[in-house]
Amino acid sequence: MFPPETLNMFLGLGRPAWKEARATLQKILSADEPVLRDNEALRKNCLVPMSDVEMLLPITVGDYTDFFCSVHHARNCGFIFRGPQTPVNPNWFHLPVGYHGRASSVIISGTDIIRPRGQGHPTGSSQPYFGPSQKLDFELEMAAIVGPGNELGKPIDIADAEDHIFGLVVMNDWSARDIQAWETIPLGPFLGKSFSTSVSPWIVTLDALKPFACEAPKQEPEPLPYLAEKNHINYDIPLEAWIKPKEQSEASVVTKTNFKHMYWTVTQQLAHHTVNGCNLRPGDMFATGTLSGPEPDSLGCLLEITWNGQKEISVGNSIRKFLQDGDEVILTACCKGEDYNVGFGTCTGKILPSLP
Amino acid sequence: MFPPETLNMFLGLGRPAWKEARATLQKILSADEPVLRDNEALRKNCLVPMSDVEMLLPITVGDYTDFFCSVHHARNCGFIFRGPQTPVNPNWFHLPVGYHGRASSVIISGTDIIRPRGQGHPTGSSQPYFGPSQKLDFELEMAAIVGPGNELGKPIDIADAEDHIFGLVVMNDWSARDIQAWETIPLGPFLGKSFSTSVSPWIVTLDALKPFACEAPKQEPEPLPYLAEKNHINYDIPLEAWIKPKEQSEASVVTKTNFKHMYWTVTQQLAHHTVNGCNLRPGDMFATGTLSGPEPDSLGCLLEITWNGQKEISVGNSIRKFLQDGDEVILTACCKGEDYNVGFGTCTGKILPSLP
Repeated sequence: MFPPETLNMFLGLGRPAWKEARATLQKILSADEPVLRDNEALRKNCLVPMSDVEMLLPITVGDYTDFFCSVHHARNCGFIFRGPQTPVNPNWFHLPVGYHGRASSVIISGTDIIRPRGQGHPTGSSQPYFGPSQKLDFELEMAAIVGPGNELGKPIDIADAEDHIFGLVVMNDWSARDIQAWETIPLGPFLGKSFSTSVSPWIVTLDALKPFACEAPKQEPEPLPYLAEKNHINYDIPLEAWIKPKEQSEASVVTKTNFKHMYWTVTQQLAHHTVNGCNLRPGDMFATGTLSGPEPDSLGCLLEITWNGQKEISVGNSIRKFLQDGDEVILTACCKGEDYNVGFGTCTGKILPSLP
Repeated sequence: MFPPETLNMFLGLGRPAWKEARATLQKILSADEPVLRDNEALRKNCLVPMSDVEMLLPITVGDYTDFFCSVHHARNCGFIFRGPQTPVNPNWFHLPVGYHGRASSVIISGTDIIRPRGQGHPTGSSQPYFGPSQKLDFELEMAAIVGPGNELGKPIDIADAEDHIFGLVVMNDWSARDIQAWETIPLGPFLGKSFSTSVSPWIVTLDALKPFACEAPKQEPEPLPYLAEKNHINYDIPLEAWIKPKEQSEASVVTKTNFKHMYWTVTQQLAHHTVNGCNLRPGDMFATGTLSGPEPDSLGCLLEITWNGQKEISVGNSIRKFLQDGDEVILTACCKGEDYNVGFGTCTGKILPSLP
């Protein structure tokens, strides 16, 4: 069923094929079904222990878009970079703000992250700083993986948007805050982000997330008709970020948040993305932006948690403003059912020192 | 030699292979070489009249980056959007500012452009405008096509940058100025650009452009060491933009500019793009940004030519502020040698009405 190395062709087949594959796999693996259960040789032939498996990027990412859809994150960033007098920009409540990310540097969880070099703000009248980033950060995000997509020039209606989303992954949009701050005016993030973007190794389908559907935040003002959806839902997906400093044997949790706080839903993101005729292709990825929640302990990146390095936080016995070489960041997402979980695996990466 | 549909594999082979292929083709096609010249049957077999050829996109674009490297364009945009008190942003003279563009909507010259729909600025306290873009524009750019590229985490040194650029194309970075202005803060251009980007059908190699090399503009302040190049050159490539209104039988030239005005060279763009470890792949494309020159009649887009629609211009017997349905835009680039030209073909596109 999956001859190529990635799922792109399967994603292009659309929801009926996904549902059939899911039902078939569930049937084969169920306790009531004797074919596999009662045939050890067959089980040995077709099942592989997870410990023997090397996880690979499940998709070839044609284009990767990063949205900015947590109002808490938008508010905190506005405050940090522009001060308290500027709230969230006026466009933010009318459309899902986003930008194109770098597809070539999307990598699978577990791949090491080399600390990027680049330019930071000059101080006074000197040249800009150049060297290893001094403000390396994680961003706790999730990303939607596109199914069939659309032809150039043919927008996807909001009512059909769900049929074009195969599922979700957990994503770490690693960020060099000093590079980002200096380069970003007026065209947005570029080298501050393009050095690496990690994703978790399997895609959880929207069908598997159905039991965790919940109402999405009320939108005020009302979205324009092309963004108005009958079924305005998010999913209740608890998320955590952990840091394991190199000098410690254990990781410590540094934030707990939830996908459900997202203001613009993934279906609204998709309808917006295509309303100008832009074509999405199977395997395209679009991320939520940092998923900060409303509470002080639910902020999705160190920029917010340490308020751009103005305060330190404890990570086990260590203290951090931003990430240090050797730190490992572990993101988790796991939906809790009554007597079962739907997990996303982890999305991890360890920081290696910059090149000399 | 080129079994797949695109040149990507050939681009990955690097400069020695490109030089060999070029020398071989030049030899086969030269007047002194009898093999083809004196064998009509062979000529008929291996040469195809240009009129019988359908041009296709010569590359599969993995990632497309758009730089912003004409100081004249940067200055005019700064003036139009932020007013005369804000000159070019301070970072601009220290690094080639750029952003990730949309790869899926890069199309071959001659493909029609459907006027995009989207949101524009609200007036007063109303909802934002939604509908067909009212400020559809062209942008006269060129783009570099990447050769071998680099592994993630391994920057390309400025001294080696030229070996990673196969050649150049002419590019029209179609822009919906109203959509762009409203969406762009704080993450940069997105739907205002992602509906279509046209490129000319063949790639002129840097080797073919060597006779037209010329000094690039002096840079002040001096670039940081990772951007300082021994051989700081541009190419003398005259560029023109023409518009053919639907109600007229002839196209009229609306601007004449030149690639040589570009402040940050393509090699500096490439070194900057990879300094953080970002990986480039064969067939990746990075564009110059609008190539406005210093003169009032050398501005590279209607935004500048009509000063954001504040004045009208004559196009033959018609007047325009921005593009109207039925307008065709024709971009040309042609280097003039003593008794020969090196041309890029044209980069054209006609505007179709927005979807209902």
